[in-house]
Amino acid sequence: MFNAHGLSTVSTHRIAAELGISPGNLHYHFKSKRLIVDWLFRRFETRLAALSEGLVSVGAIDDLWLALHLMFEAVSAYRFIYRDMALIDREFPDTAERLRARLAANLLEAKALCSNLADAGLLQATDDEVDMLALQIAFTMTSWLSFEQMVSARSGDAPSDNGLAAYYTLTLLAPYVEPQSRAYLDYLRSKYLGA
Amino acid sequence: MFNAHGLSTVSTHRIAAELGISPGNLHYHFKSKRLIVDWLFRRFETRLAALSEGLVSVGAIDDLWLALHLMFEAVSAYRFIYRDMALIDREFPDTAERLRARLAANLLEAKALCSNLADAGLLQATDDEVDMLALQIAFTMTSWLSFEQMVSARSGDAPSDNGLAAYYTLTLLAPYVEPQSRAYLDYLRSKYLGA
Repeated sequence: MFNAHGLSTVSTHRIAAELGISPGNLHYHFKSKRLIVDWLFRRFETRLAALSEGLVSVGAIDDLWLALHLMFEAVSAYRFIYRDMALIDREFPDTAERLRARLAANLLEAKALCSNLADAGLLQATDDEVDMLALQIAFTMTSWLSFEQMVSARSGDAPSDNGLAAYYTLTLLAPYVEPQSRAYLDYLRSKYLGA
Repeated sequence: MFNAHGLSTVSTHRIAAELGISPGNLHYHFKSKRLIVDWLFRRFETRLAALSEGLVSVGAIDDLWLALHLMFEAVSAYRFIYRDMALIDREFPDTAERLRARLAANLLEAKALCSNLADAGLLQATDDEVDMLALQIAFTMTSWLSFEQMVSARSGDAPSDNGLAAYYTLTLLAPYVEPQSRAYLDYLRSKYLGA
Protein backbone atom coordinates (compact mmCIF):
# COMPACT_ATOMS: atom_id res chain seq x y z
CA MET A 1 0.00 0.00 0.00
CA PHE A 2 2.89 2.39 0.72
CA ASN A 3 4.34 1.55 -2.72
CA ALA A 4 1.04 2.09 -4.51
CA HIS A 5 -0.40 5.08 -2.65
CA GLY A 6 2.57 6.73 -0.92
CA LEU A 7 3.69 6.70 2.68
CA SER A 8 1.94 9.99 3.50
CA THR A 9 -1.57 8.98 2.44
CA VAL A 10 -1.89 5.47 3.93
CA SER A 11 -3.20 5.57 7.52
CA THR A 12 -3.18 2.74 10.08
CA HIS A 13 -6.99 2.68 9.77
CA ARG A 14 -6.67 2.02 6.05
CA ILE A 15 -4.08 -0.70 6.68
CA ALA A 16 -6.38 -2.38 9.21
CA ALA A 17 -9.29 -2.21 6.74
CA GLU A 18 -7.14 -3.75 3.99
CA LEU A 19 -6.12 -6.56 6.36
CA GLY A 20 -9.74 -7.11 7.37
CA ILE A 21 -8.96 -6.59 11.05
CA SER A 22 -10.04 -3.92 13.53
CA PRO A 23 -7.82 -0.85 14.17
CA GLY A 24 -7.54 -2.10 17.77
CA ASN A 25 -6.21 -5.45 16.63
CA LEU A 26 -3.60 -3.76 14.38
CA HIS A 27 -2.67 -1.50 17.28
CA TYR A 28 -2.07 -4.61 19.41
CA HIS A 29 0.67 -5.65 16.94
CA PHE A 30 1.97 -2.21 15.94
CA LYS A 31 1.44 0.67 18.33
CA SER A 32 1.91 3.25 15.55
CA LYS A 33 2.54 3.77 11.83
CA ARG A 34 6.12 4.61 12.82
CA LEU A 35 6.63 1.01 14.00
CA ILE A 36 5.17 -0.42 10.79
CA VAL A 37 7.54 1.72 8.72
CA ASP A 38 10.49 0.68 10.89
CA TRP A 39 9.55 -3.01 10.65
CA LEU A 40 9.34 -2.80 6.84
CA PHE A 41 12.64 -0.95 6.71
CA ARG A 42 14.35 -3.71 8.71
CA ARG A 43 13.02 -6.32 6.27
CA PHE A 44 14.41 -4.20 3.41
CA GLU A 45 17.80 -4.03 5.17
CA THR A 46 17.85 -7.82 5.62
CA ARG A 47 17.05 -8.39 1.96
CA LEU A 48 19.73 -5.95 0.79
CA ALA A 49 22.32 -7.47 3.13
CA ALA A 50 21.73 -10.90 1.58
CA LEU A 51 22.32 -9.42 -1.90
CA SER A 52 25.23 -7.11 -1.24
CA GLU A 53 27.72 -9.92 -0.67
CA GLY A 54 26.95 -11.25 -4.14
CA LEU A 55 27.14 -7.78 -5.65
CA VAL A 56 30.52 -6.92 -4.18
CA SER A 57 32.15 -10.21 -5.25
CA VAL A 58 31.15 -10.37 -8.94
CA GLY A 59 33.95 -11.19 -11.36
CA ALA A 60 32.38 -10.63 -14.78
CA ILE A 61 30.11 -8.08 -16.47
CA ASP A 62 27.25 -10.53 -17.04
CA ASP A 63 27.35 -11.56 -13.34
CA LEU A 64 27.23 -7.88 -12.51
CA TRP A 65 24.12 -7.34 -14.59
CA LEU A 66 22.36 -10.18 -12.73
CA ALA A 67 23.51 -8.94 -9.30
CA LEU A 68 22.30 -5.40 -10.11
CA HIS A 69 19.03 -6.78 -11.44
CA LEU A 70 18.39 -8.60 -8.12
CA MET A 71 19.36 -5.47 -6.19
CA PHE A 72 16.88 -3.29 -8.12
CA GLU A 73 14.23 -5.99 -7.60
CA ALA A 74 14.69 -5.56 -3.84
CA VAL A 75 14.64 -1.76 -4.08
CA SER A 76 11.50 -1.99 -6.22
CA ALA A 77 9.74 -4.27 -3.72
CA TYR A 78 10.24 -1.54 -1.09
CA ARG A 79 10.24 1.40 -3.49
CA PHE A 80 8.34 3.73 -1.14
CA ILE A 81 11.49 3.88 1.04
CA TYR A 82 13.79 5.71 -1.39
CA ARG A 83 10.93 7.50 -3.15
CA ASP A 84 9.55 8.93 0.11
CA MET A 85 12.91 9.40 1.84
CA ALA A 86 12.38 13.14 2.40
CA LEU A 87 9.15 12.30 4.25
CA ILE A 88 10.88 9.56 6.29
CA ASP A 89 13.57 12.10 7.14
CA ARG A 90 10.98 14.56 8.46
CA GLU A 91 8.49 12.31 10.20
CA PHE A 92 10.17 9.00 11.08
CA PRO A 93 13.46 9.98 12.76
CA ASP A 94 14.44 6.48 13.96
CA THR A 95 13.99 5.00 10.49
CA ALA A 96 15.68 8.06 8.94
CA GLU A 97 18.81 7.35 10.95
CA ARG A 98 18.90 3.75 9.72
CA LEU A 99 18.15 4.92 6.16
CA ARG A 100 21.06 7.34 6.22
CA ALA A 101 23.32 4.50 7.45
CA ARG A 102 21.98 2.37 4.59
CA LEU A 103 22.87 5.06 2.02
CA ALA A 104 26.40 5.22 3.46
CA ALA A 105 26.61 1.41 3.23
CA ASN A 106 25.39 1.54 -0.40
CA LEU A 107 28.26 3.89 -1.20
CA LEU A 108 30.84 1.66 0.51
CA GLU A 109 29.49 -1.42 -1.26
CA ALA A 110 29.54 0.36 -4.63
CA LYS A 111 33.12 1.36 -3.94
CA ALA A 112 34.12 -2.21 -2.99
CA LEU A 113 32.43 -3.44 -6.18
CA CYS A 114 34.30 -0.98 -8.41
CA SER A 115 37.62 -1.59 -6.63
CA ASN A 116 37.23 -5.34 -7.09
CA LEU A 117 36.37 -4.95 -10.77
CA ALA A 118 39.40 -2.69 -11.23
CA ASP A 119 41.67 -5.15 -9.37
CA ALA A 120 40.37 -7.97 -11.58
CA GLY A 121 41.25 -5.92 -14.66
CA LEU A 122 37.61 -5.65 -15.81
CA LEU A 123 37.60 -1.89 -15.23
CA GLN A 124 40.44 0.33 -16.30
CA ALA A 125 40.03 3.19 -13.83
CA THR A 126 42.15 5.27 -11.48
CA ASP A 127 41.38 5.49 -7.75
CA ASP A 128 39.63 8.83 -8.31
CA GLU A 129 37.57 7.36 -11.12
CA VAL A 130 36.62 4.40 -8.91
CA ASP A 131 35.40 6.83 -6.22
CA MET A 132 33.34 8.77 -8.74
CA LEU A 133 31.85 5.62 -10.30
CA ALA A 134 30.90 4.37 -6.83
CA LEU A 135 29.05 7.62 -6.14
CA GLN A 136 27.26 7.40 -9.52
CA ILE A 137 26.22 3.80 -8.81
CA ALA A 138 25.03 4.56 -5.25
CA PHE A 139 23.01 7.53 -6.56
CA THR A 140 21.47 5.33 -9.26
CA MET A 141 20.55 2.53 -6.84
CA THR A 142 18.74 5.07 -4.68
CA SER A 143 16.96 7.33 -7.15
CA TRP A 144 16.71 5.69 -10.57
CA LEU A 145 13.46 3.73 -10.10
CA SER A 146 11.57 6.83 -8.87
CA PHE A 147 12.85 8.87 -11.82
CA GLU A 148 12.12 6.17 -14.36
CA GLN A 149 8.62 5.56 -12.97
CA MET A 150 7.81 9.27 -13.38
CA VAL A 151 9.26 9.51 -16.89
CA SER A 152 7.52 6.37 -18.11
CA ALA A 153 4.21 7.39 -16.46
CA ARG A 154 3.74 4.06 -14.71
CA SER A 155 1.50 4.08 -11.63
CA GLY A 156 2.99 3.40 -8.18
CA ASP A 157 1.70 -0.17 -8.03
CA ALA A 158 3.06 -1.21 -11.45
CA PRO A 159 6.28 -3.25 -11.41
CA SER A 160 9.49 -1.54 -12.50
CA ASP A 161 11.80 -2.73 -15.26
CA ASN A 162 14.71 -3.90 -13.08
CA GLY A 163 16.67 -5.22 -16.03
CA LEU A 164 16.60 -1.76 -17.62
CA ALA A 165 17.74 -0.23 -14.32
CA ALA A 166 20.65 -2.70 -14.18
CA TYR A 167 21.54 -1.92 -17.79
CA TYR A 168 21.44 1.82 -17.12
CA THR A 169 23.83 1.32 -14.18
CA LEU A 170 26.21 -0.64 -16.39
CA THR A 171 26.32 2.24 -18.87
CA LEU A 172 27.99 4.31 -16.14
CA LEU A 173 30.81 1.76 -16.10
CA ALA A 174 30.92 1.38 -19.89
CA PRO A 175 33.67 3.92 -20.65
CA TYR A 176 35.98 2.09 -18.25
CA VAL A 177 35.16 -1.52 -19.14
CA GLU A 178 38.03 -3.41 -20.76
CA PRO A 179 37.40 -4.07 -24.47
CA GLN A 180 36.61 -7.82 -24.30
CA SER A 181 33.75 -7.30 -21.81
CA ARG A 182 32.10 -4.66 -23.97
CA ALA A 183 30.53 -7.36 -26.13
CA TYR A 184 28.17 -8.20 -23.26
CA LEU A 185 27.23 -4.52 -22.94
CA ASP A 186 26.49 -4.43 -26.67
CA TYR A 187 24.28 -7.50 -26.30
CA LEU A 188 22.33 -5.79 -23.50
CA ARG A 189 22.09 -2.60 -25.51
CA SER A 190 20.47 -4.47 -28.38
CA LYS A 191 18.03 -5.97 -25.90
CA TYR A 192 17.01 -2.72 -24.18
CA LEU A 193 17.41 -0.09 -26.85
CA GLY A 194 16.46 -2.22 -29.83
CA ALA A 195 19.62 -1.06 -31.62
CA MET B 1 7.41 26.19 3.09
CA PHE B 2 7.00 23.33 0.61
CA ASN B 3 10.79 23.11 0.34
CA ALA B 4 11.31 23.12 4.10
CA HIS B 5 8.39 21.01 5.31
CA GLY B 6 7.28 18.99 2.29
CA LEU B 7 4.32 19.39 -0.03
CA SER B 8 2.18 16.87 1.89
CA THR B 9 2.37 18.55 5.30
CA VAL B 10 1.80 22.22 4.43
CA SER B 11 -1.90 23.12 4.38
CA THR B 12 -3.51 26.27 2.96
CA HIS B 13 -4.36 27.27 6.56
CA ARG B 14 -0.68 27.14 7.45
CA ILE B 15 0.24 29.15 4.34
CA ALA B 16 -2.35 31.81 5.26
CA ALA B 17 -0.98 31.93 8.84
CA GLU B 18 2.57 32.34 7.54
CA LEU B 19 1.45 35.18 5.26
CA GLY B 20 -0.43 36.82 8.12
CA ILE B 21 -3.71 36.79 6.19
CA SER B 22 -7.00 34.99 6.79
CA PRO B 23 -7.72 31.63 5.12
CA GLY B 24 -10.62 33.39 3.39
CA ASN B 25 -8.30 36.02 1.94
CA LEU B 26 -5.90 33.34 0.66
CA HIS B 27 -8.87 31.49 -0.80
CA TYR B 28 -9.84 34.66 -2.68
CA HIS B 29 -6.47 34.50 -4.50
CA PHE B 30 -6.07 30.71 -4.72
CA LYS B 31 -9.18 28.56 -4.55
CA SER B 32 -7.15 25.47 -3.54
CA LYS B 33 -3.68 24.16 -2.71
CA ARG B 34 -3.72 22.62 -6.19
CA LEU B 35 -3.74 26.11 -7.74
CA ILE B 36 -0.84 27.24 -5.52
CA VAL B 37 1.22 24.22 -6.60
CA ASP B 38 0.37 24.86 -10.24
CA TRP B 39 1.27 28.56 -9.98
CA LEU B 40 4.65 27.72 -8.40
CA PHE B 41 5.28 25.09 -11.05
CA ARG B 42 4.65 27.62 -13.82
CA ARG B 43 7.16 30.01 -12.22
CA PHE B 44 9.65 27.11 -12.12
CA GLU B 45 9.01 26.41 -15.81
CA THR B 46 9.59 30.07 -16.70
CA ARG B 47 12.85 30.15 -14.78
CA LEU B 48 14.10 26.92 -16.39
CA ALA B 49 13.12 28.13 -19.87
CA ALA B 50 15.25 31.25 -19.39
CA LEU B 51 18.25 29.07 -18.45
CA SER B 52 17.91 26.24 -20.90
CA GLU B 53 18.86 28.36 -23.92
CA GLY B 54 22.17 29.19 -22.23
CA LEU B 55 22.71 25.56 -21.26
CA VAL B 56 22.16 24.16 -24.73
CA SER B 57 24.48 26.65 -26.44
CA VAL B 58 27.61 26.41 -24.25
CA GLY B 59 30.88 26.01 -26.11
CA ALA B 60 33.41 25.26 -23.36
CA ILE B 61 33.61 23.11 -20.24
CA ASP B 62 33.90 26.05 -17.82
CA ASP B 63 30.83 27.70 -19.40
CA LEU B 64 29.06 24.38 -18.94
CA TRP B 65 29.92 24.30 -15.25
CA LEU B 66 28.40 27.77 -14.81
CA ALA B 67 25.28 26.94 -16.84
CA LEU B 68 24.75 23.75 -14.82
CA HIS B 69 25.34 25.66 -11.59
CA LEU B 70 22.57 28.14 -12.49
CA MET B 71 20.29 25.28 -13.51
CA PHE B 72 20.74 23.51 -10.16
CA GLU B 73 20.16 26.84 -8.40
CA ALA B 74 16.75 27.02 -10.05
CA VAL B 75 15.96 23.37 -9.25
CA SER B 76 17.05 24.00 -5.65
CA ALA B 77 14.82 27.08 -5.33
CA TYR B 78 11.85 24.84 -6.23
CA ARG B 79 13.30 21.60 -4.84
CA PHE B 80 9.96 20.33 -3.50
CA ILE B 81 8.87 19.77 -7.13
CA TYR B 82 11.32 16.98 -8.06
CA ARG B 83 11.62 15.69 -4.48
CA ASP B 84 7.84 15.30 -4.10
CA MET B 85 7.14 14.30 -7.71
CA ALA B 86 5.51 10.99 -6.72
CA LEU B 87 3.06 12.97 -4.56
CA ILE B 88 2.42 15.48 -7.36
CA ASP B 89 1.78 12.52 -9.67
CA ARG B 90 -0.86 11.10 -7.30
CA GLU B 91 -2.59 14.23 -6.04
CA PHE B 92 -2.07 17.09 -8.49
CA PRO B 93 -2.85 15.59 -11.92
CA ASP B 94 -2.76 18.89 -13.88
CA THR B 95 0.67 19.77 -12.52
CA ALA B 96 1.82 16.15 -12.96
CA GLU B 97 1.08 16.39 -16.68
CA ARG B 98 3.17 19.57 -16.98
CA LEU B 99 5.90 18.00 -14.84
CA ARG B 100 6.08 14.96 -17.10
CA ALA B 101 6.36 17.28 -20.11
CA ARG B 102 9.14 19.15 -18.27
CA LEU B 103 11.08 15.89 -17.70
CA ALA B 104 10.77 15.09 -21.40
CA ALA B 105 12.03 18.61 -22.21
CA ASN B 106 14.96 18.13 -19.80
CA LEU B 107 15.94 15.02 -21.72
CA LEU B 108 15.71 16.79 -25.09
CA GLU B 109 17.74 19.74 -23.80
CA ALA B 110 20.39 17.42 -22.34
CA LYS B 111 20.56 15.68 -25.69
CA ALA B 112 20.92 18.98 -27.58
CA LEU B 113 23.66 20.00 -25.13
CA CYS B 114 25.64 16.78 -25.62
CA SER B 115 25.15 16.83 -29.40
CA ASN B 116 26.42 20.40 -29.57
CA LEU B 117 29.45 19.57 -27.41
CA ALA B 118 30.19 16.58 -29.63
CA ASP B 119 29.81 18.66 -32.80
CA ALA B 120 32.18 21.27 -31.33
CA GLY B 121 34.74 18.52 -30.70
CA LEU B 122 34.62 18.99 -26.92
CA LEU B 123 33.11 15.55 -26.43
CA GLN B 124 34.36 12.50 -28.26
CA ALA B 125 31.25 10.35 -28.22
CA THR B 126 29.20 8.25 -30.64
CA ASP B 127 25.49 8.92 -31.19
CA ASP B 128 24.62 6.09 -28.77
CA GLU B 129 26.95 7.54 -26.16
CA VAL B 130 25.39 10.98 -26.61
CA ASP B 131 21.94 9.47 -25.98
CA MET B 132 23.14 7.70 -22.85
CA LEU B 133 24.93 10.79 -21.52
CA ALA B 134 21.78 12.85 -22.09
CA LEU B 135 19.75 10.37 -20.04
CA GLN B 136 22.36 10.43 -17.24
CA ILE B 137 22.34 14.24 -17.21
CA ALA B 138 18.53 14.48 -17.22
CA PHE B 139 18.36 11.94 -14.36
CA THR B 140 20.95 13.93 -12.39
CA MET B 141 19.17 17.26 -12.90
CA THR B 142 15.98 15.72 -11.55
CA SER B 143 17.13 13.57 -8.65
CA TRP B 144 20.64 14.58 -7.51
CA LEU B 145 19.73 17.35 -5.04
CA SER B 146 17.24 15.13 -3.16
CA PHE B 147 19.80 12.33 -2.94
CA GLU B 148 22.63 14.62 -1.86
CA GLN B 149 20.44 16.34 0.74
CA MET B 150 19.62 12.97 2.31
CA VAL B 151 23.22 11.72 2.25
CA SER B 152 24.63 14.95 3.69
CA ALA B 153 21.88 15.10 6.36
CA ARG B 154 20.96 18.70 5.57
CA SER B 155 17.47 19.80 6.55
CA GLY B 156 14.92 20.72 3.88
CA ASP B 157 15.33 24.47 4.36
CA ALA B 158 19.14 24.48 4.10
CA PRO B 159 20.60 25.58 0.75
CA SER B 160 22.10 22.92 -1.50
CA ASP B 161 25.64 22.95 -2.88
CA ASN B 162 24.81 23.72 -6.51
CA GLY B 163 28.45 23.92 -7.53
CA LEU B 164 29.00 20.38 -6.29
CA ALA B 165 25.91 19.25 -8.22
CA ALA B 166 27.29 20.86 -11.38
CA TYR B 167 30.67 19.24 -10.79
CA TYR B 168 29.05 15.84 -10.25
CA THR B 169 27.20 16.24 -13.57
CA LEU B 170 30.45 17.09 -15.35
CA THR B 171 32.02 13.87 -14.05
CA LEU B 172 29.47 11.98 -16.17
CA LEU B 173 30.95 13.66 -19.23
CA ALA B 174 34.56 13.31 -18.07
CA PRO B 175 35.43 10.04 -19.88
CA TYR B 176 34.36 11.64 -23.17
CA VAL B 177 35.87 15.10 -22.76
CA GLU B 178 38.72 15.85 -25.19
CA PRO B 179 42.10 15.95 -23.40
CA GLN B 180 42.68 19.74 -23.40
CA SER B 181 39.41 20.45 -21.55
CA ARG B 182 40.22 17.97 -18.80
CA ALA B 183 42.43 20.55 -17.07
CA TYR B 184 39.31 22.46 -16.06
CA LEU B 185 37.76 19.28 -14.66
CA ASP B 186 40.95 18.69 -12.66
CA TYR B 187 40.73 22.23 -11.30
CA LEU B 188 37.13 21.64 -10.19
CA ARG B 189 38.10 18.29 -8.70
CA SER B 190 40.74 19.94 -6.53
CA LYS B 191 38.12 22.45 -5.42
CA TYR B 192 35.41 19.94 -4.53
CA LEU B 193 37.30 16.84 -3.50
CA GLY B 194 40.32 18.52 -1.97
CA ALA B 195 42.56 16.24 -4.02
